Parts: sequence; C-alpha cells; structure tokens
Amino acid sequence: MSIITLLSDFGARDGFVGALKGVILSLNPHVHIIDIAHEIAPGDINAGAFVLASAYSCFPPDTIHVAVIDPGVGTTRKPLAVRANSHYFVAPDNGILKWILSAHPDAFVMELTEPQFFKTPLSNTFHGRDLFAPVAAHLSLGVPIARMGKPCTTFEHGVIPVLRLEGKRISGEIIYIDRFGNLVSNIPAGNLRDKNITGIVLPRHTIARLSSNYRNNDNGPVALIGSHGFLEIALDGQNANEILHYGIGAAIDIYFTE
Amino acid sequence: MSIITLLSDFGARDGFVGALKGVILSLNPHVHIIDIAHEIAPGDINAGAFVLASAYSCFPPDTIHVAVIDPGVGTTRKPLAVRANSHYFVAPDNGILKWILSAHPDAFVMELTEPQFFKTPLSNTFHGRDLFAPVAAHLSLGVPIARMGKPCTTFEHGVIPVLRLEGKRISGEIIYIDRFGNLVSNIPAGNLRDKNITGIVLPRHTIARLSSNYRNNDNGPVALIGSHGFLEIALDGQNANEILHYGIGAAIDIYFTE
Amino acid sequence: MSIITLLSDFGARDGFVGALKGVILSLNPHVHIIDIAHEIAPGDINAGAFVLASAYSCFPPDTIHVAVIDPGVGTTRKPLAVRANSHYFVAPDNGILKWILSAHPDAFVMELTEPQFFKTPLSNTFHGRDLFAPVAAHLSLGVPIARMGKPCTTFEHGVIPVLRLEGKRISGEIIYIDRFGNLVSNIPAGNLRDKNITGIVLPRHTIARLSSNYRNNDNGPVALIGSHGFLEIALDGQNANEILHYGIGAAIDIYFTE
Repeated sequence: MSIITLLSDFGARDGFVGALKGVILSLNPHVHIIDIAHEIAPGDINAGAFVLASAYSCFPPDTIHVAVIDPGVGTTRKPLAVRANSHYFVAPDNGILKWILSAHPDAFVMELTEPQFFKTPLSNTFHGRDLFAPVAAHLSLGVPIARMGKPCTTFEHGVIPVLRLEGKRISGEIIYIDRFGNLVSNIPAGNLRDKNITGIVLPRHTIARLSSNYRNNDNGPVALIGSHGFLEIALDGQNANEILHYGIGAAIDIYFTE
Repeated sequence: MSIITLLSDFGARDGFVGALKGVILSLNPHVHIIDIAHEIAPGDINAGAFVLASAYSCFPPDTIHVAVIDPGVGTTRKPLAVRANSHYFVAPDNGILKWILSAHPDAFVMELTEPQFFKTPLSNTFHGRDLFAPVAAHLSLGVPIARMGKPCTTFEHGVIPVLRLEGKRISGEIIYIDRFGNLVSNIPAGNLRDKNITGIVLPRHTIARLSSNYRNNDNGPVALIGSHGFLEIALDGQNANEILHYGIGAAIDIYFTE
Repeated sequence: MSIITLLSDFGARDGFVGALKGVILSLNPHVHIIDIAHEIAPGDINAGAFVLASAYSCFPPDTIHVAVIDPGVGTTRKPLAVRANSHYFVAPDNGILKWILSAHPDAFVMELTEPQFFKTPLSNTFHGRDLFAPVAAHLSLGVPIARMGKPCTTFEHGVIPVLRLEGKRISGEIIYIDRFGNLVSNIPAGNLRDKNITGIVLPRHTIARLSSNYRNNDNGPVALIGSHGFLEIALDGQNANEILHYGIGAAIDIYFTE
C-alpha cells in the first residue's frame, strides 16, 4: 500500500485538508494518507521546510510527501515533483524543499507541466487540491515521475544559515522554534562530537555544558542535542521562547578546547 | 474500502474525536476514516456547513460524511442521515447540511429513529459517539439508509444569504472567513463570468478589478475567485480579516457594465 | 488489521507526530494509525490521562494505544507497555496511565528494557519516535508483550482525587476542563443514580438539579452527566471555564435526601 503524507499551513478549521484527501482518494482509494502537520503558521515556508526535513526520513522508502505552503499560488512559481533519498516530494518551488535539495544534490527535480495529471479546471488559488494532490495520487498509482513534466535545473534553493567554524569556536544561530518553545539551532550534533565544550554563549545567557535531557536543577536554560540532530536550547518544563525572548536568527557561539 | 469523513467542533485536545473513531472501527475495522476538520469554532454551525460544502464533493461517490456540530444534543432536534449528490451525510438537523440540502432538493432525508443502529446506552450529551458514528459505521457496512429511520420532509433549512441582482449591480455579503483571514462572499464565480467589472465595493474599500491570484503590487485588498468558487477578498501575505475588520455579513457590491 | 492510536502533547505544527507515524509504518505498513488527540497542553499529564481514559475503551479489543506526554524523557523514568482491559498501552511511567491502572489492578505492566525493539540510536530527547512508536509497531506485528521487557510492580500511580461521601453529601472536585469550557468532576454517574438531589454547590454558584442536556432557560450553569460518565458543569452555548472562573481542583458538593 502506498503512503502519501500531507504537510501544510491549511490548519484544521477549513476544508482545505479535506479537499486534498478527497481528491487523492478519488484517484487512488487504496492509498494510505498520513497527516504530518497542518498548523504551520500561514505562509511560513522556513518552518514547513524544517518540519518536512525532520519527519520525512522516518517514513519508508517511496513514500510520497506533499508539502503545500504556497503563498505564491497562481503566480509564475513552478510546481515541482522531486525524487531524493528514495522518497518523493510534491511541492511548490519556493524553498520548502531546501533542506532536502541541499542534502541531496543528486535529486531528480521535475517541473510539473503535464495537465493530464491535474484536476480540471485548474484553479489559480488552490494548487494543493488541483495540482499537488492529484500528482501525488498519480505517483502512488505508479505513473513514473519522469512522465509528469520536464527536468528542471534552476529551482529555489532557499536560505540555509551557514555554520561558521573559527579556531576553537563554532558559530550558528536559531533556525526553528517548536511547540514547546525549544530553540533549535543549525549546529549539527556531528560538529560537537568529541569536543570538550567550555561554553555555549547566547546574547544574554551562557550555558556551561551540554545536557543529556531537558531536566535542569539550576533553573536556567539547558543546551542539548535535540531530536532533529541539532543543538537546541530549552527551559525545563517551560517555554524557552516565551521566557528568553530569542527569536529566529539569534546567535549561538560554542567554545571548546579540543 | 468504504470512506467515512469526520467534521466537528471537537478540537484536538479532548477525547471526543478519538471516541468517534473507536466506535466506528469497533463496528467496521476495514473502513477508511478521514479527518476533514475538527477545529471549527465551538457551536459554529454556519462555519461547519460551509467547510463541509467546500470539501465533500472532492471525495468519491458513496463517501459517508459525519458532521457533528451539535449544541442542541439531547434536545428535540432530530438526528438525520441524508443521501444527496451520490454522497451520504450523517448529522444533526440544525442547518449544518444547509448548503447540501439547498443545492440538492431531491435529497433523500431520513430521520434516524432505529436504536439498533445506535450505541447502547445512548447518552444525552454525546450523539457524535453514540448515534452519528455508529450510524455511519452501519452505512459503511452496507445497511441501506432506508432502514435507518423514517423519511423526513420537514427539516432545518438554515439561512443562506440571498444574492441580490439589480441592474448593473450584484450585492452579496461575507459569509465565511478562513484561517488565512480571507473573506469569502456568497457571490459565485458563475455570476461574474463574462461581465466587465468596474468596481468591487466594500464598506470602506473599493477594489478596481478581479485579480487572478493573491499577489498585489498596490498593497491593498484584492478580490479574486476563491477555491470554493465564490468571490473572496484577501490581502497579499496578510490576514485580511484582522486588518480590514470586516466580519461575517459585511456587504459587497459589484458593479459592471456588461 | 491492527490499530495503533496516538495521543500526545506534540501539537500539529512540528514534525513530532509525523515522525512517530513514519517509524510505525516503516515497521508495519499495514497497521491502521489513528490520531486521538495531539493538542493536549505541553506537559499536561493529567489532561492526557483523562483524555486517554475517556476515549480508549471505544476502540476494539487489542488496540494499541501510544500515549506520549513525556517531560521526563531521557531521565530515569521508566518506559512501559501495559495490557489492561484487553487493550495495550505504551507510555512513559509518569501517571499518564493512572486511570487505566487504578481501574484495572490486574493489569500486566512491563518495563520496556529490550533495545532490539527500539530505534537505533536511541535519542535522549524523543522516546516517542525512538522507543514508544517502534514498540507499538512490534506489538502490532505480533511480538508478545512479555518479550518486550520485565514485569514491573512499582510504577507511578498518579493522583486521582478522592470522592468523599458523608451523610447526605457527596464531595468531589473539578478534574478536567474540555475544549468547550465544560468543567468535568470526579463524581461518577453511578454515585448519583436513584438519589433525590437537592443542591449542587460550587464555591460561588448553587444549581438546583441535574439537567439532561446543555440547554438552560435560566441562563445560569447547568449540571449534567457528561459523556465521560462524570458530573459536569456547563453554560448553555458558552464557555463555563472562561465565565465562571473555576479551575482544576474547585470543590463540588452534592446534597441529596435519599
């Protein structure tokens, strides 16, 4: 049984998500539709990109991931289907696939140009329902991705904040804030392994060492490797985002001796 | 495999939705349960009616749609099962089916009176779990709708705001506001086709023409045909509802020359 | 087809829920994954415990319920798998199973100690994905619960507020508040049956009698038996919690003559 996952900023109070599901099941009643997340803030492509990247690889190979955060719907932004890391992705070309495309430069990227795989008539305002959902359903029925359009070499790469390594310091920044208020950075666990960390420095806080869980007897922020594989900053049982007031982009410097 | 969709104001923090799903799967473990929307504002029958109408027809024929926004649960309001437009609907008789019943005057409407298709004991406070979910499950198992109760000719028609056509003007109003803050009117695309529009007039804004997407270089509101097939008012990348302060019922007049 | 339900405080804006689903489907692509509730307030174990208890028994026997509200992830709190009332439960040992364990003293409780049923490497921050989801998937594949770890006799019982019966008075308290603002008490319907109630007394309100539904012509609060089987306090068409300002723990005394 094929699996199609859905990720969007459509929320759970309108009919948008239901419409996508109905379109998919009308084309392939045997597919397994799985909600990843629909309460991403309206138009927040960066958040959607991070959520998709942190969840997709838990699914089996050949899963089809539909990601629709699409403020440019109906404009010239391209619709894409992508094969990367043995998964399929169907999404607008607006950066929502940036983590996947940057991690897999060998990805096969198609611009979706074949209207026989779209819903008719194609609206200008809801390509989730009229274009991305039917394309995903056709993929789940075995239509080869190569028949869906034309290969595409120029696409939106999005902005991925660069990690800076300088002497005994790694400098990164906060790139995502989760529901619990945990502040996720762009510093991967791999860069911290085997290092003797002497300080984790935020604009208004210094943390002495990495913790292994969210509990902290000292009542201040903790730094730990989060489930996405990046360093994150948290407050035990509290919302670090609401209390520490660091937003996306806040700097984190890690000092080490070895 | 049969499909049962669920729409409610039950939210995602209580056990209500889970209870419906459990009841359905206990009766028919092979049915496909699909969430349409559960974050409709508590008791907002009008919103639920609009969401149901905008999503249901994307599903395959014979899909069973359970819609439970039911502030009158336990009172004399009737429970209904309806066959309309080749779909099934199971819902309280309180207007939540108004768009479907008004669009399909040939609908077959049953009052649900046969307790063998209900959960025992039937509570007074949760007919979603005890009545609508089990009826939907029995429908999915092939029980004919005609065995579920007795035909019903007097039911709640709800209020559908009337479109007024007067000379070279169409007058409607805002009937729904979505998660993005887009203001959806009761003016269908069909009434605007082939017309030379000279102005779209709201109480405090005038929009010169129809747009084909949400982008606007002029920074003001745009008017376009939304995905539900109605004229809607939006603000590019912003929440029109929060910024323009037009609520449900605000007037929209469209002027045209042809 | 096996059923796995999911209950958590993960919300619908991050990738947490998607990750659990992906892990489960990677191990057992034929399982039926059902969302119970994911918008439980972050870390609110009491709410999660109540929601689980009120929904689980609607599902068929042998359903596997995964309940992850887990602020102590990565500490010494034990991971559990439980067989009780013909259902399976997979959850941290932090009180989230308190209603099930107290109602079923014959429950078979296992501490999960067998890493071959976990995801590798096991993170310290996301046992939902790395431990509870894979254990549930293995249960759904037929691995006996007894092979998952070692029987466990000391576990977290949690706090269940005690009902006090004194002469012609039953004293309880508010233990849960639902999305509609209804105030749910710990007074079971069974304790009120066949009693002639003369007053339901809250700190600042007195209600004369039990109602059979949420409608009230007097405009004050109503007391009725809610769908969970407990006495609850509600305001017709309004949010009792926001208007009456009684929180969790507020006292309710019921006086009766017979």
